Amino acid sequence: MTITSFQVALWIELLAAGLGGLQGALFAAGERHRRIDVLGVIVIGLAVSLGGSLLRDIMLNQPPVVIWKNWYLLVAGASAVLGMVLQPIFARADWLITVLDAVVMGLFGAIGASKALSLGVGEAGALVVGIVGAIGGGMLRDVILSLPISFLQVGTLYAVAAGAGAGTLILLAELGTPIPIAGLVCVAVTTTVRLAAIRFNWTFPEQ
Amino acid sequence: MTITSFQVALWIELLAAGLGGLQGALFAAGERHRRIDVLGVIVIGLAVSLGGSLLRDIMLNQPPVVIWKNWYLLVAGASAVLGMVLQPIFARADWLITVLDAVVMGLFGAIGASKALSLGVGEAGALVVGIVGAIGGGMLRDVILSLPISFLQVGTLYAVAAGAGAGTLILLAELGTPIPIAGLVCVAVTTTVRLAAIRFNWTFPEQ
Amino acid sequence: MTITSFQVALWIELLAAGLGGLQGALFAAGERHRRIDVLGVIVIGLAVSLGGSLLRDIMLNQPPVVIWKNWYLLVAGASAVLGMVLQPIFARADWLITVLDAVVMGLFGAIGASKALSLGVGEAGALVVGIVGAIGGGMLRDVILSLPISFLQVGTLYAVAAGAGAGTLILLAELGTPIPIAGLVCVAVTTTVRLAAIRFNWTFPEQ
Repeated sequence: MTITSFQVALWIELLAAGLGGLQGALFAAGERHRRIDVLGVIVIGLAVSLGGSLLRDIMLNQPPVVIWKNWYLLVAGASAVLGMVLQPIFARADWLITVLDAVVMGLFGAIGASKALSLGVGEAGALVVGIVGAIGGGMLRDVILSLPISFLQVGTLYAVAAGAGAGTLILLAELGTPIPIAGLVCVAVTTTVRLAAIRFNWTFPEQ
Repeated sequence: MTITSFQVALWIELLAAGLGGLQGALFAAGERHRRIDVLGVIVIGLAVSLGGSLLRDIMLNQPPVVIWKNWYLLVAGASAVLGMVLQPIFARADWLITVLDAVVMGLFGAIGASKALSLGVGEAGALVVGIVGAIGGGMLRDVILSLPISFLQVGTLYAVAAGAGAGTLILLAELGTPIPIAGLVCVAVTTTVRLAAIRFNWTFPEQ
Repeated sequence: MTITSFQVALWIELLAAGLGGLQGALFAAGERHRRIDVLGVIVIGLAVSLGGSLLRDIMLNQPPVVIWKNWYLLVAGASAVLGMVLQPIFARADWLITVLDAVVMGLFGAIGASKALSLGVGEAGALVVGIVGAIGGGMLRDVILSLPISFLQVGTLYAVAAGAGAGTLILLAELGTPIPIAGLVCVAVTTTVRLAAIRFNWTFPEQ
């Protein structure tokens, strides 16, 4: 059985890249005590937006699409600047950004896991690649800022939401479900788990 | 002269992966004040166990085996959970874990250096790849936890033991020694240097 | 239009690698309170010297030249040791090292951006790869030492100088300028921006 990569229209991917740039800028605004300059904000925006795709392609030994094609960097950079300038407005749309972020996380989880499967990676590896694709941007941001990587700590459930979605996609793909359908289910599962975790204050047990 | 890669039976590699997962979990137990959740412990276990192989293959521009084949991730993850649950028992077998760890470090040094040589990498690069293969898991763990990378500091001699073994392998391979023999010598040298460093409290001079 | 990679004589590249190793050692000397041993100094020297080239080739999905060929590692490692031993002498040649560093940054920016273009990477990606090639060594040093990556902070203008040079090269290459000329212009622009930023105390606005 040949598994194909989950494809979405370019404008959806660019919308996702733009949202990532925005979130990077809003995060940087909360770290003002570090004296980050305008360029630093753009770098953090690019990292949050494109870091997951970059790490995914490096782990899969493929040329990183976000480096090769201009649009990703341009959209992510522009939205980081926008996020910095309009920060007070976006800060008020907090819930909207949270919802969109959950959808984007599901999207990148689906792209990562299906791309891995299409290259012949095993199920366990595809799950890891899906999770890294979904949350790698935040990981790269934390490494750049020398913060402990936030998903390791109690009360975020980021990786769990990404893993639940990617795991469902892998299961469905193995059962022969067409990838476009499996991809949409992945987005739905990740979004639901993520928003439910926030709404009901779910946490994972501490060690 | 064609140099082949040092091959060990899959069960030996998986045993090594399992030991890495265990050590990651024990390390995480010592960092309880960071409020790492169960998932975080598994991530640290995977990083310690498989990080060296992942970084090695990325540096060699090869598809990472630990991503491609299911067994590595499954064994490393399961042993991290085991290490978390049975932590009090394993903590008492401290010396056994130290010895096994030295052997595993030698093993991954031999695999890394010989894989590099087999791809046409020069001696200096093969030495670096061997060392990264041997101690890269600990490096990745430290980056994830935002700790200063421990091997840079006085009194560990981790990298020295790995380098002594990998260097010996490279020398022997250049002299025409069959790789299986050179690999075993590498394991013996690394284990000896590492255990002697602990036993006799060897350190490297500070700058 | 086919764009070729900017080539410089091997001895120039090795001189650049040597300067990087030297700077790594001088940086390590300033971090003495961390109790970094001799090996740690060498590792920091290698990271500063070769980190940019390594990250560049990983982002371009190419076998890293600094791993494959012996000379880079040997020269960078030897100069790190030299820098450690002769630290008081080099500390007095501060201004010379600053000038040489600016030239080297321009050189690696030109190599990175042109190598990316020659592989078919878009202009935005080539700019990022050029900047990473130029300043990636310092980034890797900061990650290894768990310092916040310094170029994100106010008052360094490192990335700006590298970006101005690489951007100029990309523009000239698109206009059909032969790469050797575009590369030299890149070095001149980067050096000028960097030294002017130091001389006139230029900064980028904070967010």
